[in-house]
Amino acid sequence: MSKKIAVYRKEHFNAAHRLHNPALSDSENAMLFGKCNHPNYHGHNYELIVKVTGEVDPKTGYVIDMKLLGDLVKKEVIEKFDHRNLNLDTKEFKELNPTAENIAMVIHNLLEPKLDKRYELKIILYETERNFVEFPA
Amino acid sequence: MSKKIAVYRKEHFNAAHRLHNPALSDSENAMLFGKCNHPNYHGHNYELIVKVTGEVDPKTGYVIDMKLLGDLVKKEVIEKFDHRNLNLDTKEFKELNPTAENIAMVIHNLLEPKLDKRYELKIILYETERNFVEFPA
Amino acid sequence: MSKKIAVYRKEHFNAAHRLHNPALSDSENAMLFGKCNHPNYHGHNYELIVKVTGEVDPKTGYVIDMKLLGDLVKKEVIEKFDHRNLNLDTKEFKELNPTAENIAMVIHNLLEPKLDKRYELKIILYETERNFVEFPA
Amino acid sequence: MSKKIAVYRKEHFNAAHRLHNPALSDSENAMLFGKCNHPNYHGHNYELIVKVTGEVDPKTGYVIDMKLLGDLVKKEVIEKFDHRNLNLDTKEFKELNPTAENIAMVIHNLLEPKLDKRYELKIILYETERNFVEFPA
Amino acid sequence: MSKKIAVYRKEHFNAAHRLHNPALSDSENAMLFGKCNHPNYHGHNYELIVKVTGEVDPKTGYVIDMKLLGDLVKKEVIEKFDHRNLNLDTKEFKELNPTAENIAMVIHNLLEPKLDKRYELKIILYETERNFVEFPA
Amino acid sequence: MSKKIAVYRKEHFNAAHRLHNPALSDSENAMLFGKCNHPNYHGHNYELIVKVTGEVDPKTGYVIDMKLLGDLVKKEVIEKFDHRNLNLDTKEFKELNPTAENIAMVIHNLLEPKLDKRYELKIILYETERNFVEFPA
Repeated sequence: MSKKIAVYRKEHFNAAHRLHNPALSDSENAMLFGKCNHPNYHGHNYELIVKVTGEVDPKTGYVIDMKLLGDLVKKEVIEKFDHRNLNLDTKEFKELNPTAENIAMVIHNLLEPKLDKRYELKIILYETERNFVEFPA
Repeated sequence: MSKKIAVYRKEHFNAAHRLHNPALSDSENAMLFGKCNHPNYHGHNYELIVKVTGEVDPKTGYVIDMKLLGDLVKKEVIEKFDHRNLNLDTKEFKELNPTAENIAMVIHNLLEPKLDKRYELKIILYETERNFVEFPA
Repeated sequence: MSKKIAVYRKEHFNAAHRLHNPALSDSENAMLFGKCNHPNYHGHNYELIVKVTGEVDPKTGYVIDMKLLGDLVKKEVIEKFDHRNLNLDTKEFKELNPTAENIAMVIHNLLEPKLDKRYELKIILYETERNFVEFPA
Repeated sequence: MSKKIAVYRKEHFNAAHRLHNPALSDSENAMLFGKCNHPNYHGHNYELIVKVTGEVDPKTGYVIDMKLLGDLVKKEVIEKFDHRNLNLDTKEFKELNPTAENIAMVIHNLLEPKLDKRYELKIILYETERNFVEFPA
Repeated sequence: MSKKIAVYRKEHFNAAHRLHNPALSDSENAMLFGKCNHPNYHGHNYELIVKVTGEVDPKTGYVIDMKLLGDLVKKEVIEKFDHRNLNLDTKEFKELNPTAENIAMVIHNLLEPKLDKRYELKIILYETERNFVEFPA
Repeated sequence: MSKKIAVYRKEHFNAAHRLHNPALSDSENAMLFGKCNHPNYHGHNYELIVKVTGEVDPKTGYVIDMKLLGDLVKKEVIEKFDHRNLNLDTKEFKELNPTAENIAMVIHNLLEPKLDKRYELKIILYETERNFVEFPA
């Protein structure tokens, strides 16, 4: 049996966004995204769960120090996105539509280079209690 | 003992807002509201609980038909605020700072005239899981 | 300031029911209760919160022993309603429409005579996460 | 690394059921299923999570339009089971015991033919907050 | 109608405790508190909700600045109790049995002198998801 | 497609613990574990989810009888750890640091020998709502 164990850390941020693909016309955007394309933005309380898989260090009994993991997520993700407008205030979504899928992939790309190569990283992002995504699947 | 009973109906909406009092200077607003005053807006998944208190109708066993109450809340509140920017898209918050307190009072004022006088109305509004308000107290 | 303190105990039961007033015609019942009147019953995971208000006993630091309160609720309420059909299997709802309001009042009447007179009792009943009632208000 | 991403959509329905295998005797059913075999049915608030795995469409930033997925689940599953008696009112459980496991597999079979072949489908079904199932594992 | 509005702030702390009244014998303690009297302590994730009632300041739209309220709760309560043994590490519970009722009253007494007199304060404390208290009632 | 299905059963226990590796010096422990190393212990409401994967028995419609699974978890895990001090009262953590990772692995080792070989077992353990682990990953 695998000796791997996964640890999960939950954080949250509040942000405004608008679903909009700048490469498409306004009417195409309206048709594709409906009220989520509303020009003045709406917003969400995003719940972010970061999953890190690895082996337990026998000295600490930890896969990774959850406090350090939480601090990393706060520094690399929360400070960048919390109380921000994703479309207007972040370089990541200047050209990229801030769907839950794309936000999860962006967060993955922000965190992965900061983690030791021995870890496997997965991002779970709740846009609402009823809509959430997981990357990679 | 009172024969009154309270019924609660939960609905939700997603909106962008920015805490900002137009009567104050930008620096006063920044000092008072910190990152909540960020100019490009942020957003929330608002959870709205409408509490209606009254007597049970012996014919139906209801205080009020929860489906009709839900439809009323959807028509008067959710359609107005869901996927909107509270500061820019609603007349209620053109001059009024969209704090959770003020949003709860506005929702109270929208619903109360539509309810029969025999009911007592209370609004509970969750801005996040950790911050919520109740009006009237 | 009041020295009173309230304690809450949460229990749950699963039951089938059908909204139906035996004193009304089938068409009236269908009109009043819609799909909740469906003849073969539907069901719920009911979450029951029992609130008991009183003064703290300085010997124990308890208003009431929560374990004894839980045992009382299990004996007087849960055993009677759990995994039952409220309309068919319980004498309380033979003639009474099992709306959330009426169930809460019935539970209040079952528990109140079993509690010492120095306590005040309130029942909170969740029919679903979005519909719940409180008696007395 | 896989480019696949999973999206989850949560819906719910309320239904009555009774655990009963028509191929067995009454006493065998009573012994196997205990109070869940009670003849007059009991019920649940089922929480249904539909997981769809695929690649992100670069045009929309979606794996699948969550609104269309929600509409599909409502049409194929919720309308069929909500406020129904699974044993009496549905052809799927005429001969099949409506355990959480079997309900999840039935829902999988209802939805899979309606989804494009490029998607992978998984069903997660909560019978109560404490008992839930996932198919396929 | 009252112009008062209530705001709620949720915080949490993890602590060990043991239900024990030093004025009683060991056997009386064992009889009264059962496994909660176990000599080596057990523990909880306490969820603390602080409710402050007052009038909205028209300048800010706030009853009280939730960030300042959160900071006050962290300074006066969380830093004192979080990751502590209530019986051994805090002067408040040297002689006082750390039941949920007593903890809620102690927290009330810690916070009330720090709040402006125009506010009314209530403490809601979850010991577990199923057992919680509210003071004053 | 796999015919395997997973069933999940949620239980909970309250325990005190202290993160401490007896093989290290006090100052190393303090540096590694911070406030979690506090000598007088703190505690948690642990939420334990046991996942069992297997095939559905056509006679019962069950992968495994959830009531029997719940009883097994209560007997082998809950009775051992509930209202206990993990460091002082359990032989499993005499030499082993009771991190969430190690507790999950210990629970896995307690339950696996009691389950039929045809089942696959996974343990999910919430130390708090924000920190949880899964073994094996």
